[in-house]
Amino acid sequence: MPEIAYVNGQFLPLDRAVIHVEDRGFQFADSVYEVIRTYGGRPFAMDEHLARLFRSLEAIELKPAFTADAMKAIVVEGIQRAGFAESVAYLQVTRGRASRHRGFPADTNPTVVLTVRELVGPATGAEEAGISVITLPDNRWGRCDIKSVALLPNVLAYAAARKAGAHDAIFVEADGSVTEATAGNVFIFTAGTLRTPPKGPKILPGVTREKILQAARESGIACREEAITKAELLDAEEIFISSTTNETLPVVSVDGKRIGSAKPGEVTKQVREAFLRAFVRKK
Amino acid sequence: MPEIAYVNGQFLPLDRAVIHVEDRGFQFADSVYEVIRTYGGRPFAMDEHLARLFRSLEAIELKPAFTADAMKAIVVEGIQRAGFAESVAYLQVTRGRASRHRGFPADTNPTVVLTVRELVGPATGAEEAGISVITLPDNRWGRCDIKSVALLPNVLAYAAARKAGAHDAIFVEADGSVTEATAGNVFIFTAGTLRTPPKGPKILPGVTREKILQAARESGIACREEAITKAELLDAEEIFISSTTNETLPVVSVDGKRIGSAKPGEVTKQVREAFLRAFVRKK
Repeated sequence: MPEIAYVNGQFLPLDRAVIHVEDRGFQFADSVYEVIRTYGGRPFAMDEHLARLFRSLEAIELKPAFTADAMKAIVVEGIQRAGFAESVAYLQVTRGRASRHRGFPADTNPTVVLTVRELVGPATGAEEAGISVITLPDNRWGRCDIKSVALLPNVLAYAAARKAGAHDAIFVEADGSVTEATAGNVFIFTAGTLRTPPKGPKILPGVTREKILQAARESGIACREEAITKAELLDAEEIFISSTTNETLPVVSVDGKRIGSAKPGEVTKQVREAFLRAFVRKK
Repeated sequence: MPEIAYVNGQFLPLDRAVIHVEDRGFQFADSVYEVIRTYGGRPFAMDEHLARLFRSLEAIELKPAFTADAMKAIVVEGIQRAGFAESVAYLQVTRGRASRHRGFPADTNPTVVLTVRELVGPATGAEEAGISVITLPDNRWGRCDIKSVALLPNVLAYAAARKAGAHDAIFVEADGSVTEATAGNVFIFTAGTLRTPPKGPKILPGVTREKILQAARESGIACREEAITKAELLDAEEIFISSTTNETLPVVSVDGKRIGSAKPGEVTKQVREAFLRAFVRKK
């Protein structure tokens, strides 16, 4: 079964899935998205992802011509049609096709695109070994809480990290506050407490971030949503990055400085276990 | 003759011009562009636009598989094929199609898209009456000197301006510095001097901006590339916004405050005349 796509009402092989060059997602990044994964073949946290999609749509004043339930049905059907053991579904909604002008077009239907690819685990053994990161000034726009496709800053920061021999970058604001990695929320463990920056305009309200906080609290780990300084990041006992596809990715080096024992930490493993136990394995 | 497009080696009617849904321009705003207009049917300032395109490509580390001359030939042919009296050519280059991941793909050819539409003057009489603007916090990313398609902040700022009953927005940094309008450079005339913010990471080096400075200087108007505060903007005798398609668009109101006599200013008209005389009419 090949990778599959859905474009504006029609399922088709991924290879044949196209959009018009004057789609506003292509010309203006006027578009938001979600990435949904499966566990045991079933989509995970679908309601949370779709709720966030609708929040993103509202934030960019894009009135969808569909309901969350209709979107859910498309994602489920796409995953079934693809038939992989585990899938990653990528769902993108744009303001549609219009003659190029930055103003909202008057009579345009949103474009809805879904792609379904096979989910493959990290090939590099990153989960076992942990990754190294560099810090970079956060030069992204002011509304990173909107899951938009305006991702060029993330692309360039990730490339800079790879060029520096690291696996990813963590953004730091001018005042020294840690925000996010290039595709995930940042957690540190210090002095008996798990911390992650509080929600705000520079923080995507991660679905996995929320589940991890809940699972960690339920398993008795003290958690705080609280600003983290770069100095605290460098001095952390443990660090991990949360995301849909990587769950909890341990960070063992920041800007060349070893974190903890330079191996994935015990609390990170506990948190991961708690997350899997609470939300994945029980199903 | 219909609008025309070019996609990766092929000219075709605009309606049939498509790109793959996994194009990085669509999924990551990993893409830069130029807008080139004609005067008397001939493309204006083509060399400057292509030089800037190549600077943008270099800034995002996209190694083009083509020369500036090859690009130029495509734009010229597109304009000829469309055959409009006056045209707007939109040229966009992306990092190409790749399975979705924020990392630069290893073996991907850049996508090149051109669209050619008829250039129509401002229908609203904006040139004669002047426009009203509001100021908004500049929440764009830190590299607005790269002409990228990560334009969602501009789209939303423009929409906010329209909702507020204005025609456009001018961005202001947290320190009070004026940067740009949502699609053009800002000029003010105060105390005998024409001023525009100096080049920097938040300022697109506008082709029209440069030509206007040159034409104004040659016609004896004192010019300075110098930071402009919001207070100076509000107190300016005249304001205009420069861009390829609007040339010099007079601003007669900022945040509801009248600028000058609430009509397009005399210096703005002089500058416009000097620009047209120096670069357009002489040809």
